[in-house]
Amino acid sequence: MNLKFLKRAELLKPALCEKIVKPDNTWRLLCGGEQALFDFGDHYTGYLTIDLSSKGSHQDAPVLLSIKFYEINDEIGEDTTNYNGWISKSWLQEELIHVDELPAKITLPRRYAFRYVLIKAEAMSSKHSLVIQDIYAKAVTSAPEKVAPAGETERERAIDKIAVKTLSECMQYEFEDGPKRDRRLWLGDLRLQALANYVTFKHNDLVKRCLYLFAGTADDDGNISACVFTSPKNEADDTFMFDYSLLFSAAVADYFEYTGDIATAKQLYPLALKQIRLASKRFKNNVIPDSDKLGWCFLDWNLYLNKQAGAQAVYIYCAKAVKKLAAALNKPCAWLDKQIKDKSEAAVKAFYDSEKGLFVSGKDRQISYAVNAWMCLAGVLTMEENAKVLSRLESVDAVKPVTPYMYHYYAEALIAAGEKDKARDIINNYWGAMADRGADTFYELFDPENPDVSPYGAKCVNSYCHAWSCTPAYLLRKYF
Amino acid sequence: MNLKFLKRAELLKPALCEKIVKPDNTWRLLCGGEQALFDFGDHYTGYLTIDLSSKGSHQDAPVLLSIKFYEINDEIGEDTTNYNGWISKSWLQEELIHVDELPAKITLPRRYAFRYVLIKAEAMSSKHSLVIQDIYAKAVTSAPEKVAPAGETERERAIDKIAVKTLSECMQYEFEDGPKRDRRLWLGDLRLQALANYVTFKHNDLVKRCLYLFAGTADDDGNISACVFTSPKNEADDTFMFDYSLLFSAAVADYFEYTGDIATAKQLYPLALKQIRLASKRFKNNVIPDSDKLGWCFLDWNLYLNKQAGAQAVYIYCAKAVKKLAAALNKPCAWLDKQIKDKSEAAVKAFYDSEKGLFVSGKDRQISYAVNAWMCLAGVLTMEENAKVLSRLESVDAVKPVTPYMYHYYAEALIAAGEKDKARDIINNYWGAMADRGADTFYELFDPENPDVSPYGAKCVNSYCHAWSCTPAYLLRKYF
Repeated sequence: MNLKFLKRAELLKPALCEKIVKPDNTWRLLCGGEQALFDFGDHYTGYLTIDLSSKGSHQDAPVLLSIKFYEINDEIGEDTTNYNGWISKSWLQEELIHVDELPAKITLPRRYAFRYVLIKAEAMSSKHSLVIQDIYAKAVTSAPEKVAPAGETERERAIDKIAVKTLSECMQYEFEDGPKRDRRLWLGDLRLQALANYVTFKHNDLVKRCLYLFAGTADDDGNISACVFTSPKNEADDTFMFDYSLLFSAAVADYFEYTGDIATAKQLYPLALKQIRLASKRFKNNVIPDSDKLGWCFLDWNLYLNKQAGAQAVYIYCAKAVKKLAAALNKPCAWLDKQIKDKSEAAVKAFYDSEKGLFVSGKDRQISYAVNAWMCLAGVLTMEENAKVLSRLESVDAVKPVTPYMYHYYAEALIAAGEKDKARDIINNYWGAMADRGADTFYELFDPENPDVSPYGAKCVNSYCHAWSCTPAYLLRKYF
Repeated sequence: MNLKFLKRAELLKPALCEKIVKPDNTWRLLCGGEQALFDFGDHYTGYLTIDLSSKGSHQDAPVLLSIKFYEINDEIGEDTTNYNGWISKSWLQEELIHVDELPAKITLPRRYAFRYVLIKAEAMSSKHSLVIQDIYAKAVTSAPEKVAPAGETERERAIDKIAVKTLSECMQYEFEDGPKRDRRLWLGDLRLQALANYVTFKHNDLVKRCLYLFAGTADDDGNISACVFTSPKNEADDTFMFDYSLLFSAAVADYFEYTGDIATAKQLYPLALKQIRLASKRFKNNVIPDSDKLGWCFLDWNLYLNKQAGAQAVYIYCAKAVKKLAAALNKPCAWLDKQIKDKSEAAVKAFYDSEKGLFVSGKDRQISYAVNAWMCLAGVLTMEENAKVLSRLESVDAVKPVTPYMYHYYAEALIAAGEKDKARDIINNYWGAMADRGADTFYELFDPENPDVSPYGAKCVNSYCHAWSCTPAYLLRKYF
């Protein structure tokens, strides 16, 4: 724990902007067993208030209400009773409350992420009806109000609007991964949120706060966790992921690039470098060993993805980011130069299949978008060769990404390889497909070929407003 | 509405005595799916606090807890999912709450009636355990602490103790019928609670308050409801029951007899008399007509009981109580005398089957304990004849009572007929059977032959601490 860093983070804790939002139609009358659906017209993160009264005889029994919150239309009324996936059922945004006395104005104490609210009178006396007099939410975000639109076509502007909304919903006291789940600061998500933020809300103090939260909760050896809890106190999760820790370095380098805040960059530089040093110890003969452990290196939520070569690529990519930062801070580091050189050469030797002209990963020599995109971003081949790699990828049976997170890096890889049009197609086709489905915010997971996929065992615990999917707002402004 | 009466009731609103109570063993550790049962050692009415913390990794998902309250051992763990009786499921003392952040000290806002609390971790992350650090309740009652024991034998003293506890649990801001359900002031219950109170806690102002609540919420014609709500404001229920309205008169007469409070008696006398006058209009040729309507006249929860002759008997009984009060207040009433005479003669003529030597009721000439006991209490025959009636009842297939409420009037009838020993047997055998089952408080319903009976469709909504069952405390002190 670095208390000085945590103190800085605390001082940077933002105020939240609050806004009262209402569904179109608020007044409803319910008898026992009846339900009412309220559509708030957009995705909101906040606190619900319902104003209830009674009609008929005096209420002579408690009213048992279920209140369910849905981010997207597809979720409405789904029977979640038997959900038993590996992510806890406790994430379902469903409440069961007793109202002993009407009239009652009830503000639920928990925060929810939703567009739709379904209220059902599960049980009540037949001697009266329940009147929903009013229903509204106090929506909260730490994002400033306005962002000028981006995109050249109407479609791109629509995509951008959804991306910006996604980002703003996830901007709370920290950059959260998703306001429904997990509602906390994850490193991989932070890096992409920060990039989108620099070109939209420019709430750079929130990025700074988050960097200090990670830095302040590093363990005594300097290991940075994949995720930090900030309540009831700041605490690192005991989940460490190879790529997420490394991306701290890239996030610090980005921060300096976009803000020029040299004091912060200097303060965080040693930890950024430390992530490279710590990760370097995991290599054997300059090649990262493979692992079966779920989550040892994230890359993507595709459960069939082999991570080995991707991990090596992320390492090189982040080492290069730190090298650039070191140069700007006038702290050249020969060790870093050698790491980049050795790992890059080894990467080509170990993972580049020159017959196929593609990078392969793991003992089964798996071909995936994730690994090839990351290798292009790592720049172990020339730009022209990268373009060919990415082109060849399209004509083989490669493991595809399932998250907007990995689609972002794929788009970035295309841009780095000079294929801007293809990157733009990704934005229009991948994120655009979510827009076509009526998304108000972009999803945690979206596989256009399998829209019902979930790595958690069932869709109902998926998050349909997820920070790492906000990057069209960045890509459109940065490159187009 | 009589605002003067309601103002008096308001001024008499008691303070509640609070006591912190704990189960023997408080500390428990739960993983997802596990549960812990807490036994508070006695029945309590109050508010639960649980002090929770976490063990293991940082809590990375909400904890979904179910908290269920049980009055008796038989209820524990009963699956109530499919309960669909005509009394609302919302009465089940079951909560489902999310705990977003540990540690957390949670005081549930609702009041419960319970001895046992079952807490289950319905869903939570597998990365940590839930620690129940502490659990306690703030028990509330408006009954003063101590009452000297009554009863000659150990068994009777045990029965008395349970009866006194039952009464004290139901003494809150009003005399409630049951602290689990319906948690409010019913007239039939009030009359028996008041009798038990006069010889135990002597909290006579609480009786006075309740009488003024009924008097103050009478409708413009003077009709007194079976039940009064006091929250959010004083309001009569739109349930009127022939016998309950009449028993207001008896309750006022009792109040004067035990307190000598002549000012209150004078103020309430006109309404007491009014109940007799209003009920008199329902007669045809001095005989009350029969009705199929559930609850038109309560008498007992036996759904097969015909109420006709019982209603006539209650009328005579209450008219006599008012006559006695009128005499004490020096307000003799010839109309009342004639009512008693006419209705008594008509009762014998219409309902006494001289061949059987028993009272019968309804077109099917049903023989029941309820009707015969009430006819004895109404005193339409001589004391000796009453003793014979009650004796004959034992050797025929008569409809039996299912509530302690009706057993009370049966015991009173036996005493009125000079059969004190038989009344004492009722206390020892009927209430004693509940004591044998380990009752901490006496039940709303108890049929020794069918202990699982419920007029509501299922036992889980029964109330196991019910005011009208507290009368052994009265009978033992008054008659033995």
